[in-house]
Amino acid sequence: MSGGFMDQAYTKIAGGVTAAKGFLASAVSCGIKNPTSDRLDLALIFSEDPCTSAGTFTTNRVKAAPVRVSQSNLRKGDVRAIIANSGNANACTGLQGIRDAHAMCDGVAKPLGLKRTEIAVASTGVIGLPMPMMRITPHYDSLIQGLNPKSGPDVAAAIITSDTHAKECAISFMIGQHRVRIGGCVKGAGMISPSMATMLCFITTDAAISSENLRKATLECVEESFNRITIDGDMSTNDTVLVLANGASEMPNIRRNSSQCKLFRAALKLVMLELAKAVVRDGERVTKFVTVNVLGARTYLDAKKVAEAVCKSALVKSSWNGGDPNWGRIIHAVGYSRARIREELIDIHLDEKPACLGGLQAPTPMDELRAIVAKPEFTITIHLNQGLADYTMYSSDLSPEYIDFNRSEYAYWKQARKDGLV
Amino acid sequence: MSGGFMDQAYTKIAGGVTAAKGFLASAVSCGIKNPTSDRLDLALIFSEDPCTSAGTFTTNRVKAAPVRVSQSNLRKGDVRAIIANSGNANACTGLQGIRDAHAMCDGVAKPLGLKRTEIAVASTGVIGLPMPMMRITPHYDSLIQGLNPKSGPDVAAAIITSDTHAKECAISFMIGQHRVRIGGCVKGAGMISPSMATMLCFITTDAAISSENLRKATLECVEESFNRITIDGDMSTNDTVLVLANGASEMPNIRRNSSQCKLFRAALKLVMLELAKAVVRDGERVTKFVTVNVLGARTYLDAKKVAEAVCKSALVKSSWNGGDPNWGRIIHAVGYSRARIREELIDIHLDEKPACLGGLQAPTPMDELRAIVAKPEFTITIHLNQGLADYTMYSSDLSPEYIDFNRSEYAYWKQARKDGLV
Repeated sequence: MSGGFMDQAYTKIAGGVTAAKGFLASAVSCGIKNPTSDRLDLALIFSEDPCTSAGTFTTNRVKAAPVRVSQSNLRKGDVRAIIANSGNANACTGLQGIRDAHAMCDGVAKPLGLKRTEIAVASTGVIGLPMPMMRITPHYDSLIQGLNPKSGPDVAAAIITSDTHAKECAISFMIGQHRVRIGGCVKGAGMISPSMATMLCFITTDAAISSENLRKATLECVEESFNRITIDGDMSTNDTVLVLANGASEMPNIRRNSSQCKLFRAALKLVMLELAKAVVRDGERVTKFVTVNVLGARTYLDAKKVAEAVCKSALVKSSWNGGDPNWGRIIHAVGYSRARIREELIDIHLDEKPACLGGLQAPTPMDELRAIVAKPEFTITIHLNQGLADYTMYSSDLSPEYIDFNRSEYAYWKQARKDGLV
Repeated sequence: MSGGFMDQAYTKIAGGVTAAKGFLASAVSCGIKNPTSDRLDLALIFSEDPCTSAGTFTTNRVKAAPVRVSQSNLRKGDVRAIIANSGNANACTGLQGIRDAHAMCDGVAKPLGLKRTEIAVASTGVIGLPMPMMRITPHYDSLIQGLNPKSGPDVAAAIITSDTHAKECAISFMIGQHRVRIGGCVKGAGMISPSMATMLCFITTDAAISSENLRKATLECVEESFNRITIDGDMSTNDTVLVLANGASEMPNIRRNSSQCKLFRAALKLVMLELAKAVVRDGERVTKFVTVNVLGARTYLDAKKVAEAVCKSALVKSSWNGGDPNWGRIIHAVGYSRARIREELIDIHLDEKPACLGGLQAPTPMDELRAIVAKPEFTITIHLNQGLADYTMYSSDLSPEYIDFNRSEYAYWKQARKDGLV
């Protein structure tokens, strides 16, 4: 695997969104998630100096209000701060939702000396219930007073919902003579599927890079990280990835297509891929992390179709949950992927062991295959032997507990009822 | 709903594939499913007189050997008999699988006085293990000796696998002065998803209709029945629908595009739709039968995309399992369906009650919505308010028990090992 942390060029460092120089953060507990708990659920990230910014958002046509507002603000210029909450997605909330998202920007813009459009806003949580603004509004002051360069972990904690733990990643590396840092956090455990920027992810860097170059790098890296994971095949209404670069490393601006630009891109991808994998590993009631490599496809799109079909199949995911090395179910999903394949050419390996060769059962003893699928992490390699294109995805099993966990969101509705919101 | 059994024109009658005149059937227990049980697992359907025939098959590019052989035989002319087994799908079995499927045709062709190409063959069960032919071959004789006009129910029982019960449907109606019967059986409970003829379904009729007209009617009816159901989103390698028409009702041949042809088509669709719904109701560990109506789409394809996204969403299906009237999850799936929609125009009703109006929470009390989703069968109507196209699908919840049930097929492998097949 390329770009692992064994790679000499990059050093893993502590922290997330405040690992880079010049970024402050803060988080408070407003009771949006649960009025009777003190879990953090409102967060703020702020760059002391002007910065460039880039974002990618869900391609779901039902978009949450904060997604619409952040997209609009990013179109107007760079953002320098991000306000984010968990517990309510502010999705399917109509005009009032847009007003609430604007109000969240306004609430921190003035005290920070910024325009409303210099703030990005992100929300995650239940869909279709009005935002409990009466819980949020009283906390803008303490949010701003709490800003400091060490509260990255609080942001990571404040944005999680069904995640079992906060997820951060940060690295440090040299660009020329300058030490540069990239760090970020991510939330997401359900409603995770590729073909957009899945979930909330905030990344900061003290690299100096133009908005245009940052945007290009962000799009490319999201395509090779967050767009390659799936837990349950469901695409969220709130997916947001935001990257802020403030140049506080004092390096000169990264030039387009330079070797420095490549170095930066590789570093950004490394951070995004680590965070994306962390999302799958922390997927709702997930017990397996499975890397699916598709090789030898005729086109990139064919390879992608095969990987997505396999990674999204309920039957394949059930067999992973059961530790069953069921290559018959894998090849059946390959078959309905709509990719151009020839059954008799397909090889399937579990880690290094062949399970299927030329479309037929391979001679590997079943016990050896079962030992692989029994592990918490393994790799499935599907060689189509048709061409040179490949694609990799990161997926999980589907467990009975996932469905149990997602049977009802009634508790949220009951709270909203208590709050007089519905 | 059009075409229900309340419709005066059609009378529900007992039986399945032998409800129509001139069809014989037979089934035996070979021990393919389980060598120590006497469950029926090999079946034969035979038309005493020459007949016309039509079939639709999986569009999975990984096709089981019996699918390939039946497709080839149907291309050569009409088939007059069907041999089918459960317990082994004869899929991903290479050249030996093709030989075994041919052998099954040969085994009954001669005693029936037919050519090999006048037999269709169908298999269902585990993928990737060789057919245990040593279990099947000794039973051709008793299969043929057992042929009789009352064994339709035995065929229905012999083809089921994870189904909890055999599924049959038959109707009788008048075409002109002649009473005509259409009857059939179906198996299928998992690996069920639209866009092909899902599962095994055999239908016989004593109507007189040309091969060409029968083929046209079959394709149209499959599109409006079996292609509109989904249980787990997984498309099988063995899906087969076969329709045999022998004219034993002594009616004159149905002319193309005549009113008689329309009557026949409506009747065929009625039988197929009943059987398709029976598959969903008997889906693996299913607790809910949900009809999803999409109305007001700009195009048929848009309506279909919306219905499929909603019916296949793991999160929507989990909420159905939990009896949670979660319209937020429904609209989120509408959003990622890639259909052209406008969030603010969408209405969602559960049975007759509005859950979402204009993309926002409707004022219906939550308890009333919960009462609807608590029922074993209910209808979700999604009005896009964008155009005139509509589409209906039949789906189920996804239960923790489904995943438990599908965690492992290791027992099949162990039996194959014992049999010396792997």
